[in-house]
Amino acid sequence: MTEAGRAVAILSTGDEVVEGRTVDTNAAYIADRCAQLGFDVVVKLVVGDFTDRIEWAWKTAFAKADIVISTGGLGPTADDLTNETVARLTGADLILDEAQLAKIRAIFERMGRSMPENNVRQAMLPAGAEVVENELGTAPGYRFTVRAGDRRPVGIVLPGVPREMRPMMEEQVLPWMAERLGADHVVRSRTFQTFGMSESALDEAVAGMIPPDEARLAFRAAFPQIALRLSATGTREVVEQRVKLYGDRIAERLSGVIYGEGDKSMEAAVGELLRARGTTLTAAESCTGGMIGARMTNVPGSSAYYVGGIVAYSNKLKERLLGVSRTTLSMFGAVSEETAREMALGARKATGADIAVATTGIAGPDGGTPEKPVGTVAIAIAADGYGADGVTSKTYQLWGNREWVRVLTAQLALDWVRRVLLDLSPLDSGFGKRAPSKT
Amino acid sequence: MTEAGRAVAILSTGDEVVEGRTVDTNAAYIADRCAQLGFDVVVKLVVGDFTDRIEWAWKTAFAKADIVISTGGLGPTADDLTNETVARLTGADLILDEAQLAKIRAIFERMGRSMPENNVRQAMLPAGAEVVENELGTAPGYRFTVRAGDRRPVGIVLPGVPREMRPMMEEQVLPWMAERLGADHVVRSRTFQTFGMSESALDEAVAGMIPPDEARLAFRAAFPQIALRLSATGTREVVEQRVKLYGDRIAERLSGVIYGEGDKSMEAAVGELLRARGTTLTAAESCTGGMIGARMTNVPGSSAYYVGGIVAYSNKLKERLLGVSRTTLSMFGAVSEETAREMALGARKATGADIAVATTGIAGPDGGTPEKPVGTVAIAIAADGYGADGVTSKTYQLWGNREWVRVLTAQLALDWVRRVLLDLSPLDSGFGKRAPSKT
Repeated sequence: MTEAGRAVAILSTGDEVVEGRTVDTNAAYIADRCAQLGFDVVVKLVVGDFTDRIEWAWKTAFAKADIVISTGGLGPTADDLTNETVARLTGADLILDEAQLAKIRAIFERMGRSMPENNVRQAMLPAGAEVVENELGTAPGYRFTVRAGDRRPVGIVLPGVPREMRPMMEEQVLPWMAERLGADHVVRSRTFQTFGMSESALDEAVAGMIPPDEARLAFRAAFPQIALRLSATGTREVVEQRVKLYGDRIAERLSGVIYGEGDKSMEAAVGELLRARGTTLTAAESCTGGMIGARMTNVPGSSAYYVGGIVAYSNKLKERLLGVSRTTLSMFGAVSEETAREMALGARKATGADIAVATTGIAGPDGGTPEKPVGTVAIAIAADGYGADGVTSKTYQLWGNREWVRVLTAQLALDWVRRVLLDLSPLDSGFGKRAPSKT
Repeated sequence: MTEAGRAVAILSTGDEVVEGRTVDTNAAYIADRCAQLGFDVVVKLVVGDFTDRIEWAWKTAFAKADIVISTGGLGPTADDLTNETVARLTGADLILDEAQLAKIRAIFERMGRSMPENNVRQAMLPAGAEVVENELGTAPGYRFTVRAGDRRPVGIVLPGVPREMRPMMEEQVLPWMAERLGADHVVRSRTFQTFGMSESALDEAVAGMIPPDEARLAFRAAFPQIALRLSATGTREVVEQRVKLYGDRIAERLSGVIYGEGDKSMEAAVGELLRARGTTLTAAESCTGGMIGARMTNVPGSSAYYVGGIVAYSNKLKERLLGVSRTTLSMFGAVSEETAREMALGARKATGADIAVATTGIAGPDGGTPEKPVGTVAIAIAADGYGADGVTSKTYQLWGNREWVRVLTAQLALDWVRRVLLDLSPLDSGFGKRAPSKT
């Protein structure tokens, strides 16, 4: 297989996508999966529901790519134009696919309805197309080949509904694409989720660890975490070995900073540790307003270790529900390590949880002072034997707008819980002072 | 101005965008704003950081559009290629713009750093370009004109960082584009945020209200709310009058269902009502786990009316912090209107807030039973004189996965608080049983 055989173009059709009413997550997903497989995504194109524009986009894409993957335009209504455009493009007739029509009818029957006549359109496929089965909806996908000079690029047509399209990609299209690459072009990768180091610091930390001709490392900042993806391309045995070897080395080098592999979230990582240790957690939240609780309970089964928490947004509730003393609040202020410590201790007492994490801060845009500017955040953790009085606190000066400060505070709090469970120190106060690397 | 003058193409550059590691929200935003102004977005293109691909994309875009708007590739590093590609495309030299260089230096000085030599690149602009000022970052944007046959399409270059790019669009590019359209092509619109009716029910409710030649209505489902946008194109006076007239009629027809205009969020709408009435709110959250608190405190200044709340995820905490009786929990279960009512009453008592809203439900994927399947949710509101004992409850059977059930529960709870403040009844139990319209 030549290098040229790896060029992919992605085509999205639909007025709602071209006009920005819908963000084009389909194209991002397809591009990501193709790139992971070792394909070169040369262009993404988006056009509205007009036959001439769709036809132009296909031609433009085929001029640049060996494989063109299209989503959208397969519905039963008059503005769904993909099938007729492909027919026009290839000179093929649209032919009724009886098997697909039977499948569509069956879907309606299962819902206790009879199929509207319009849906017949969805089973009218260009002659010669090879069906990509849609197990979750009425629009079949398909593959077809065109002639472009002496090249024979392939078009792949998929529906625009993500929950139908994604399994079709995963189970049918990507395996077919991988096979086309041949046995010498297997791609294997491992992704590590990190928190606490900047992209450039991570880059430095792993510098020289990986021979560039054997594997490569890519960073992906998805605030507040940064993912590291190690990948290798080549024959199966070699790449599996390399990804294992270098992956293990990276995992060791960045051990405290990596909180999970694959697409694991911080709350899932914390949850697993709590579950494994039979430990329970609570949160006393001021500036995060419930975000820690919302994230912890995002994970199915979290009731096994997350008991609940107290959102003490007003000073009155800090006193009333958490037992923070009025003296502490007036002497040190609501945003202080002293208050955070009493909040954490109070939350343990009120809930009986093994570990309590507390947050209090100035998220902005108002409320900052010269001594405590917007972004000043105090976090405390209470647990048996953690610090002299069973509580430890830290102050951070965080960067960003209200939303960023809150998201980062919740992440710092969860990361600290993770570190307590792993016997690691919390991130140092210098963390979060600068803008993260460009997005 | 001819129809042809309204064709816009949007070009995004960057490996991270073309490979799908970053979802292209820039293009969606730009397309949306251009479409709102009455422009026709003919194509969106995305290419990686290669000079030849970027040049090809510009040429392809100029062949189809009168205005091409590009984002990305303006950073200080070697893979930022937009300026040199534009220079090559137009045959212009790259010339140092002293004023922009001084601005970049000043940005670094404000941060107490000296400017790295690399950043000089950002001030090297194609000769003849008209600067689009960047008030928030180091990369200036600009406009330039090319020759394409007898057409003179315009290119607009903007940075890829959304917080820099968006104000440049709003304050400089869109006004320039609007002026180009001329006085007969003014577009005016009003957007209404709704919750509680399906897209088809909304469509029916407003059917026949608007003469199609005078204005048009578009629906945009952004789970869990649906926005209705009314827009009219024509001369300024006429369209302003139409949008006012038909907008007011729609606002009246859908009065309970519309919770705000523009891009107002439900939590901001609830916050405004609480503030206006001098009323305070608390939440007792089980299945939502803190989402109501997190959303309420998302709004700057929310401490004026949101005192905080209690996340009682475990039954123990429902008893301990909210005073739910063990008998109620064992007789009716944690997910029951009885429990929700005691949670709401308990939260008012614990916090002293004027209104308390409580949520308890089965978010899934596990925990469902034949009597209480996944998606069963009980919500209660406690307030003086609201219901016989100062508390009212309802049960909903919601559709969707864990995340949807939780998001919808938080939205229903907030919407009910809004309805209490406006003396409206809560949404009826039939709400949320079916899948929303396709996304």
